[in-house]
Amino acid sequence: MDLHNGSISIKEAQHRLRLLPFQDLEDACVDTHRGIRKGYPEVIFCPGKTTGQILNIARELLRVHGTFLATRAEKNIFNSLRDHIPGLAYHAAARLLYVTDPQKKPAGKVAVCAAGTADLPVAEEAAITCEVAGSAVERIVDVGIAGLHRLVKHLDTLWTSRVIIVVAGMEGTLPGVIAGMVGRPVIAVPTSIGYGAHFQGLSPLLTMLNSCAPGIAVVNIDNGFGAGYLAHMINVQTLDDKR
Amino acid sequence: MDLHNGSISIKEAQHRLRLLPFQDLEDACVDTHRGIRKGYPEVIFCPGKTTGQILNIARELLRVHGTFLATRAEKNIFNSLRDHIPGLAYHAAARLLYVTDPQKKPAGKVAVCAAGTADLPVAEEAAITCEVAGSAVERIVDVGIAGLHRLVKHLDTLWTSRVIIVVAGMEGTLPGVIAGMVGRPVIAVPTSIGYGAHFQGLSPLLTMLNSCAPGIAVVNIDNGFGAGYLAHMINVQTLDDKR
Amino acid sequence: MDLHNGSISIKEAQHRLRLLPFQDLEDACVDTHRGIRKGYPEVIFCPGKTTGQILNIARELLRVHGTFLATRAEKNIFNSLRDHIPGLAYHAAARLLYVTDPQKKPAGKVAVCAAGTADLPVAEEAAITCEVAGSAVERIVDVGIAGLHRLVKHLDTLWTSRVIIVVAGMEGTLPGVIAGMVGRPVIAVPTSIGYGAHFQGLSPLLTMLNSCAPGIAVVNIDNGFGAGYLAHMINVQTLDDKR
Amino acid sequence: MDLHNGSISIKEAQHRLRLLPFQDLEDACVDTHRGIRKGYPEVIFCPGKTTGQILNIARELLRVHGTFLATRAEKNIFNSLRDHIPGLAYHAAARLLYVTDPQKKPAGKVAVCAAGTADLPVAEEAAITCEVAGSAVERIVDVGIAGLHRLVKHLDTLWTSRVIIVVAGMEGTLPGVIAGMVGRPVIAVPTSIGYGAHFQGLSPLLTMLNSCAPGIAVVNIDNGFGAGYLAHMINVQTLDDKR
Amino acid sequence: MDLHNGSISIKEAQHRLRLLPFQDLEDACVDTHRGIRKGYPEVIFCPGKTTGQILNIARELLRVHGTFLATRAEKNIFNSLRDHIPGLAYHAAARLLYVTDPQKKPAGKVAVCAAGTADLPVAEEAAITCEVAGSAVERIVDVGIAGLHRLVKHLDTLWTSRVIIVVAGMEGTLPGVIAGMVGRPVIAVPTSIGYGAHFQGLSPLLTMLNSCAPGIAVVNIDNGFGAGYLAHMINVQTLDDKR
Amino acid sequence: MDLHNGSISIKEAQHRLRLLPFQDLEDACVDTHRGIRKGYPEVIFCPGKTTGQILNIARELLRVHGTFLATRAEKNIFNSLRDHIPGLAYHAAARLLYVTDPQKKPAGKVAVCAAGTADLPVAEEAAITCEVAGSAVERIVDVGIAGLHRLVKHLDTLWTSRVIIVVAGMEGTLPGVIAGMVGRPVIAVPTSIGYGAHFQGLSPLLTMLNSCAPGIAVVNIDNGFGAGYLAHMINVQTLDDKR
Amino acid sequence: MDLHNGSISIKEAQHRLRLLPFQDLEDACVDTHRGIRKGYPEVIFCPGKTTGQILNIARELLRVHGTFLATRAEKNIFNSLRDHIPGLAYHAAARLLYVTDPQKKPAGKVAVCAAGTADLPVAEEAAITCEVAGSAVERIVDVGIAGLHRLVKHLDTLWTSRVIIVVAGMEGTLPGVIAGMVGRPVIAVPTSIGYGAHFQGLSPLLTMLNSCAPGIAVVNIDNGFGAGYLAHMINVQTLDDKR
Amino acid sequence: MDLHNGSISIKEAQHRLRLLPFQDLEDACVDTHRGIRKGYPEVIFCPGKTTGQILNIARELLRVHGTFLATRAEKNIFNSLRDHIPGLAYHAAARLLYVTDPQKKPAGKVAVCAAGTADLPVAEEAAITCEVAGSAVERIVDVGIAGLHRLVKHLDTLWTSRVIIVVAGMEGTLPGVIAGMVGRPVIAVPTSIGYGAHFQGLSPLLTMLNSCAPGIAVVNIDNGFGAGYLAHMINVQTLDDKR
Repeated sequence: MDLHNGSISIKEAQHRLRLLPFQDLEDACVDTHRGIRKGYPEVIFCPGKTTGQILNIARELLRVHGTFLATRAEKNIFNSLRDHIPGLAYHAAARLLYVTDPQKKPAGKVAVCAAGTADLPVAEEAAITCEVAGSAVERIVDVGIAGLHRLVKHLDTLWTSRVIIVVAGMEGTLPGVIAGMVGRPVIAVPTSIGYGAHFQGLSPLLTMLNSCAPGIAVVNIDNGFGAGYLAHMINVQTLDDKR
Repeated sequence: MDLHNGSISIKEAQHRLRLLPFQDLEDACVDTHRGIRKGYPEVIFCPGKTTGQILNIARELLRVHGTFLATRAEKNIFNSLRDHIPGLAYHAAARLLYVTDPQKKPAGKVAVCAAGTADLPVAEEAAITCEVAGSAVERIVDVGIAGLHRLVKHLDTLWTSRVIIVVAGMEGTLPGVIAGMVGRPVIAVPTSIGYGAHFQGLSPLLTMLNSCAPGIAVVNIDNGFGAGYLAHMINVQTLDDKR
Repeated sequence: MDLHNGSISIKEAQHRLRLLPFQDLEDACVDTHRGIRKGYPEVIFCPGKTTGQILNIARELLRVHGTFLATRAEKNIFNSLRDHIPGLAYHAAARLLYVTDPQKKPAGKVAVCAAGTADLPVAEEAAITCEVAGSAVERIVDVGIAGLHRLVKHLDTLWTSRVIIVVAGMEGTLPGVIAGMVGRPVIAVPTSIGYGAHFQGLSPLLTMLNSCAPGIAVVNIDNGFGAGYLAHMINVQTLDDKR
Repeated sequence: MDLHNGSISIKEAQHRLRLLPFQDLEDACVDTHRGIRKGYPEVIFCPGKTTGQILNIARELLRVHGTFLATRAEKNIFNSLRDHIPGLAYHAAARLLYVTDPQKKPAGKVAVCAAGTADLPVAEEAAITCEVAGSAVERIVDVGIAGLHRLVKHLDTLWTSRVIIVVAGMEGTLPGVIAGMVGRPVIAVPTSIGYGAHFQGLSPLLTMLNSCAPGIAVVNIDNGFGAGYLAHMINVQTLDDKR
Repeated sequence: MDLHNGSISIKEAQHRLRLLPFQDLEDACVDTHRGIRKGYPEVIFCPGKTTGQILNIARELLRVHGTFLATRAEKNIFNSLRDHIPGLAYHAAARLLYVTDPQKKPAGKVAVCAAGTADLPVAEEAAITCEVAGSAVERIVDVGIAGLHRLVKHLDTLWTSRVIIVVAGMEGTLPGVIAGMVGRPVIAVPTSIGYGAHFQGLSPLLTMLNSCAPGIAVVNIDNGFGAGYLAHMINVQTLDDKR
Repeated sequence: MDLHNGSISIKEAQHRLRLLPFQDLEDACVDTHRGIRKGYPEVIFCPGKTTGQILNIARELLRVHGTFLATRAEKNIFNSLRDHIPGLAYHAAARLLYVTDPQKKPAGKVAVCAAGTADLPVAEEAAITCEVAGSAVERIVDVGIAGLHRLVKHLDTLWTSRVIIVVAGMEGTLPGVIAGMVGRPVIAVPTSIGYGAHFQGLSPLLTMLNSCAPGIAVVNIDNGFGAGYLAHMINVQTLDDKR
Repeated sequence: MDLHNGSISIKEAQHRLRLLPFQDLEDACVDTHRGIRKGYPEVIFCPGKTTGQILNIARELLRVHGTFLATRAEKNIFNSLRDHIPGLAYHAAARLLYVTDPQKKPAGKVAVCAAGTADLPVAEEAAITCEVAGSAVERIVDVGIAGLHRLVKHLDTLWTSRVIIVVAGMEGTLPGVIAGMVGRPVIAVPTSIGYGAHFQGLSPLLTMLNSCAPGIAVVNIDNGFGAGYLAHMINVQTLDDKR
Repeated sequence: MDLHNGSISIKEAQHRLRLLPFQDLEDACVDTHRGIRKGYPEVIFCPGKTTGQILNIARELLRVHGTFLATRAEKNIFNSLRDHIPGLAYHAAARLLYVTDPQKKPAGKVAVCAAGTADLPVAEEAAITCEVAGSAVERIVDVGIAGLHRLVKHLDTLWTSRVIIVVAGMEGTLPGVIAGMVGRPVIAVPTSIGYGAHFQGLSPLLTMLNSCAPGIAVVNIDNGFGAGYLAHMINVQTLDDKR
């Protein structure tokens, strides 16, 4: 270490110690220890990155973790990378680009509910985020508040999940209804689906924050990735693990 | 008058009757023909009026209609007027001051639902507004979304009402749930009951406006009077009447 | 079934009928009993659905109800479906796709007022929604607040309607003016027509919610369908009916 | 001074007079030439000033202009100053403290309309601001949109005014209605009177800004003073004057 | 008519004239008496109207008033109509289509100030609206707050105008600065020019409403037409006229 | 009951148990099976309830669950009830009234972090809610962003917790910082502590929703109860349990 | 150090190294090295702290730095502490409690401008914050936009300051005007002084953010402390210093 | 001129020089003395200006200052001007068009930090603005809150800068974190990078305004130019300079 041969001061050394190891790539630092620190590998947020940058980061992540996930990925990025990354998958509506690890057996269970068909892209973003990380997922679609009775046949699935993601636009009442019926943690995802006084998702966001059925927390509008990431964390942890 | 010399038609005369007559009191014009024009007597909005002014208007309305309703009335107004107006009633939580007509038999049925006990004052404002005008009312209280199953035993009452008023604060999902289950017109009343990102009723207001269960319309936050007034209009009219 | 061995009452059975039966299609559950439960058949909200999905749902609805309505339908959907559905009609401005039942005689009367020519698409959405369901409609167009006197010749139409829909953008004052003159329930529809501090319909929405002329309720911005649906419910119901 | 040696023109000198002279008082600079520059003497905004400061400024203004106006003045200020300033008047609801000039004959005509009795304090603030400055004022009260027909008897007053101030809370539609009927400049004043989705005057403010009846401009919520000041300026100027 | 048999007074008759006559065109009622009632002919708001409708209304207005103004007119409308309406002018940036009356001598003076070059389209909309109606206009451009000293050379123009229109985006401070220096009525027009926390004109709108320099009123964001219309009204009226 | 004659399955019966039973008290339905259905007994929301109502509900809950929690309880309620409920505890700042079960051994671990001392009342509400339900809690206080380095000594506590609640007002960045360092689910609670452009908690709410460090979900402003409830659910469930 | 005798792991040591030294007091960690790290000693934010806590922290800060500043301090705190802390000063309007160091000679120059007398408390908060830290301050008061010409006599003071703080409520235009005239860094402080569409300081905040006169940055509404702190930092640093 | 005959002092004359001279170009007044008055030459804001106007202003600025900067410049403007202005540079992402002065040696040091790669365009706008004016700049990229530890290796750069610009979208916490660690003035720039409840930059703007780590001020969303301009001013001024 530099400290021993005197090339840096003790103060400098203390500063360096504050950071965990990382290594520079061209335009972005890929934090290869992050999977260890957080239980989920670094994820690539595509907007503002070139295809080349995404490829470099993806390869580094694959080398270390054997899997990776890139969010908000447009179709053309997939087209450019599909020949360079074996096993690359793409979900157009969810705008996810990913490689899953076929070795990994899906663990636990996360239920992902979409209130309407228009909410499916965000629900898929949540579901695939869980699956890439290793969680088992069950999807329940088109069970909005106007057809509440349809929900009944899914009660078993909901009760046997360790965490429930509920994706809803419009008035966003479904998460509160499910939380009122099922004793499982609910992660609510408002979507920007709606019009008029919907204000691009503000209405369901407020509905979910104000839900008087406790056991709900909310992520950002259209943030399927964030919901999936958190759901996976809750799903896989057990009382005794100490990472 | 123009009618006598034939220069205008009878229909025209009726129109003018609806538009013109009124008489001045000291500070406010009491429109004594309004009961005829609108099917509901003029209502006194108390804020900004002195007790004397309220008494004058109330007496004029009683003389013409035999009943009256004053909204947003503080307790002290009731105390001042109770000795001057026989049969005067007061509901403190709803802040309503009124005289009902014992002759009038309640007609039809309006269901008034309150999602929580904290929503009762607004629900009472709606219910009494209906009753003073002559509608029969059934109250259903504390049936919020967190205890949705409690709603089931009230389904008969809801289905046999001609119009349903649903009062809800917090996330405001109850009107949408009821509209999704019962084929009756629903008037939704958001209340300012809540905290945080509730914004004094903005959250349930947006929820109700964005409800994807059709058959709902919304009145202003805490506007129990407006909901009751409209519900009464819908309740009493029949297909053949032409007022 | 439980009913046969007497363990539940007939009333209970009716309730279950209202709550339970539905059948799965590929991507969306079409609720064929909904016409019975709500007095209006299920309506297809087009955004996010493929033409194939819309066709399947439409056919199922036609089979059961003999009529259907699809909202927010773009022109290309009509072009794709016109050869597959006999009697299919399309209103481009209102973005409605529908089949009406020529057997059904229009009932009652709903007045639909548009404040300006720019509000016509939303007004048409409301009017056709009423007509598809079986209500008679009278249209009154371009009677905005700047030309209030034009309204006078329509007073008869307004007074003889069972419910009035008023569509207005800009400052949105027309519903309050009409409610102040005519003793009929008014359903106000703010539109996103305007600019500047209009905020895509927020201004007329607030105006309508704050109207001090009672007898008004409001639906979401540009929600002509919701207004039409509710108006039809109010128009057709009679005091004695028990659906 | 530069004027004497001819290095600047007389016109230039007049400009400098308008821009430069002022004199320091203890905590606030009273601009004694302002009456000349703007056609209205400096006005005292009371919040944050001590009674002593207000007295000093008032005396200086009286010395120069023979009149003064203090806005947002609480009762206790009046009580403290009434013995020190002869002819001091106070309007409690409008929170105005002022001395008028009995010599000055009221000029022109400003109509001040209040939609409801609750809007009277703001309307009085506007009216007295006009009167202190020398404009003649006619008041029209309680002519809100729900009783539009009451407005008819005031049409003559409105047409013969040089400028109309319309004060309205609730939904704030009255200015647009008046501007649609009368060809006079309308200054609209939204008030904070209302509740729910009124947002302390935001609703009538937006209504007035979006009015499609041209000939209206708007001042801040509850800003009766600003409306009166502007109305006076419009009222007194004539085509040929060049101040 | 009632006037002939004496049952109503002449004054009453004049009132009725102001309120009643109009005639139907295909899609819009053109109010040909409006020029008399309001001092400004009816103006055509183009969005939502077909070229044919605009032509019909324009011809009717030209027949009665010899002039007309159409706002928010896209270039293609001008191209379609230029061969059908002699003397038709078009201002592309202001999106105005109009015919002026060469007989009419410009009256009074309106100053129109634009804070920046980007505000010119709205300023032109205001200026041309004045000119079509018959007011003389002086334009002052690019005098924003960052170059306040540039304003000095225009002080004479401002002082000799009967009303000043100030158009400003960004922070919108120019109207307050001018009102603080010049004793003339100021009509402030916020524009949507800006970015970030500008919120499409909300920032300058609030600035102008909160201006502590009195003598200002505000119209809607980008509403050059409304400002021009009101400015013309103030400019042309004189103390003795009684229309 | 249907179960006895075999017409419904045991699974179906369990579902019904979850949905149906409840019993009426005077003003509020206490749902005594709720502890079973949701893993947490019914909680009393005090605002709008009388002391007598609270006592009745509390006794019923104690009878069934041996514990209860009342939120938003003012001091006077505690004073009235302390003699009627043995073991009653009260936390004034958190406004919680509760009875804990001394038999129950605290399970798992929830970390509750408060960014500043002013955030302590909300943090306590969260912590006590966990403890009443049976979770072990560790409190970490005053570790706001300005003293980020203070957080380091608590890293072990954070890593060994099964879920972390982070309470923060002002700019609300602490949850994102912790989520960026520790691989545990983070429930973020914005508080209304702040001033100016803080808007009663809107600023930290938005910060938390927009956090780019995944693994966070957000509850309503000041909703310590909601955060504690959800944290308890996550803390106590294990992969194999099927309630 | 613990590492040498093996009582903690290397990983633990790394964690500990990340934090700079600090020491625990009862309820708040006082960071005595912060003056070195940041160039300004830790400041006490009073809300939510007891008088005893404030006394403890103040004494520790005095011991290390010989000076301290406490913000948002109510009068009663001063009354409680004045006998325990020699040299304690208090400014009631600015709510500041502080001890200055008489040894320290004021350095550089910061100009603090208040647009109106009502803005003085916030301006004083900024000025005293600078002075306690050691900066020389010149105050310029009541130079709002309506009396812009008053500003001229202060131009020398402004040009010879190293940084200018401008405090303004109402429309908040003063900072932009000063930045347009003087080539010095301007720190703008919006205040909550105003009414109506002022929204507690939102209006001047937006104005300042949108100012097109560059050289301005903005702090939170009413945040005189933050402005003073930053101004002091800019004032005292020189090109060659390396702290 | 007044100076010659002694009627004004030299100091006064200098003031006038700062206030008065300017010269007209066709559509925009280029203020050639502005570099002297403000320490930074006039900058061209491109939107709304033609290429010809930009060329004219640029040439005038180059003639006087030997450098110029044009902001919000689209690519096509560069293409049109590159042959007419020698040494013209263009940064596409930052939309800056400029000519630097190769003679000028970069002075001092400004650190420019970007939280994410998507924030780079705004960061570049800030950095180039500093460089064109003559400041030395060090760039630190992709150091967002999720990878806080990456920041450590840049601490030396930050501590040795005279001012730090921090550009961040998403939740916008980086400026507060840096201000909490480094005792240098921080200029925070929120960007519109984000989605959902980000509201085009409102979320990071509020975060930055509410930062409890003092030493921060904020500029408008995406206003890299404003941040660079202010940073340059702070960077180059020294305690003794009196411009």
